[in-house]
Amino acid sequence: MHPDDAYLELASAHSFPVHEAIQIGGKYVPVLRDGTLLYVSGQIPRIGDQVHFVGAVGSGPHAAIDLAGARRAATVSTLRALALAKAALGSLAAVRSVPRISVFVRSAPDFTQQSEVADGASEALYAVFGPRGVHTRTSVGVLQLPKGAAVEIDFVFGVE
Amino acid sequence: MHPDDAYLELASAHSFPVHEAIQIGGKYVPVLRDGTLLYVSGQIPRIGDQVHFVGAVGSGPHAAIDLAGARRAATVSTLRALALAKAALGSLAAVRSVPRISVFVRSAPDFTQQSEVADGASEALYAVFGPRGVHTRTSVGVLQLPKGAAVEIDFVFGVE
Amino acid sequence: MHPDDAYLELASAHSFPVHEAIQIGGKYVPVLRDGTLLYVSGQIPRIGDQVHFVGAVGSGPHAAIDLAGARRAATVSTLRALALAKAALGSLAAVRSVPRISVFVRSAPDFTQQSEVADGASEALYAVFGPRGVHTRTSVGVLQLPKGAAVEIDFVFGVE
Repeated sequence: MHPDDAYLELASAHSFPVHEAIQIGGKYVPVLRDGTLLYVSGQIPRIGDQVHFVGAVGSGPHAAIDLAGARRAATVSTLRALALAKAALGSLAAVRSVPRISVFVRSAPDFTQQSEVADGASEALYAVFGPRGVHTRTSVGVLQLPKGAAVEIDFVFGVE
Repeated sequence: MHPDDAYLELASAHSFPVHEAIQIGGKYVPVLRDGTLLYVSGQIPRIGDQVHFVGAVGSGPHAAIDLAGARRAATVSTLRALALAKAALGSLAAVRSVPRISVFVRSAPDFTQQSEVADGASEALYAVFGPRGVHTRTSVGVLQLPKGAAVEIDFVFGVE
Repeated sequence: MHPDDAYLELASAHSFPVHEAIQIGGKYVPVLRDGTLLYVSGQIPRIGDQVHFVGAVGSGPHAAIDLAGARRAATVSTLRALALAKAALGSLAAVRSVPRISVFVRSAPDFTQQSEVADGASEALYAVFGPRGVHTRTSVGVLQLPKGAAVEIDFVFGVE
């Protein structure tokens, strides 16, 4: 499947709005091309102007989001990155590789399944790009994230 | 304004010593050029041999540094990176882009304004480089940082 | 010393199995070459299928691993990255630089020696590569890591 179509299908499955411009602010940008790399700023699972999946990930009294929810959050963060890359490049077909993603999971103190959360991003990249979407990644558990989001992910794409 | 002059002006506003060599130790370096990228190691808000802005960021009993202080800390960390880049390149005019910064904020448990802290770095880069200083960034809230610093930031600069 | 021999010597000193293939899973890879850079996914101190060095780093009731243990954990994480790079490149002699490592230390709340932990990685890189192994680095203290590991490190190598 063409990556743009695979993106539309995944977005639809997650009720992610593909026609909405992503709002930005401040003296930084959500996406920047430098040579053959496209950098995407850390993305939280925001849809429109609302952050979905707010809270620490885990189980027990200190957690608000379970593993399944955190994986969906990672998918939504990835959808945002794909929307930004598509807007910057015209088509996701211009992505030739995904060298690196960094996955930050707002974690309850005893939650250690950050890699399983990151699978929500890895599977989304594979669904859209196939073997070209296979990447290296780093998953860590942090105390807090902007707006209290459960997940934040940044991306480096290789482009033609 | 020439970026070197803008740097001197910003350094002066923050009492940041521009004539002092930055001390390093260990088997790593604060700055390394590889091809067309200049990498800067994570910088904490150290002036001379003293870390300014020590403690968790937020409000309430678990916080020692408020948002305004943390933004100043981010500016000082950025000034250090600029000093290192200037020393490595001869002049900041050799910086052609800033693809990525990663901002780690030592956060009180309920502090979620990591992006607003990072603005202290983004605004410093814009003050020095103008539109060339616009970058992607990732801001996360961590439990601790070296020497208890409130902020640590690493940088990737594009160079000629 | 040839970097491959230095690697074997360091691995032997840490009882790190050099003949064992490193297991991977999921839709990501432990190592990926893109142009002249080789990216290595975040490595925890796993030997075979067992994670050594599990727990928070520091002293006091909230810590399970002391500074000396955490430094060894950083060395083991680095040995894994070297094993992966060697498998991908054929020989570690193909590594021409180490632009960046990011060191995440699972920290007890009051532990601030993340840089000293990272020295365990920096010294291993120097032992294997000599001056070519000198790198930039970022060390932060996080709340949790996958499988409860004490340390996680990711790497960017420059390759020929």
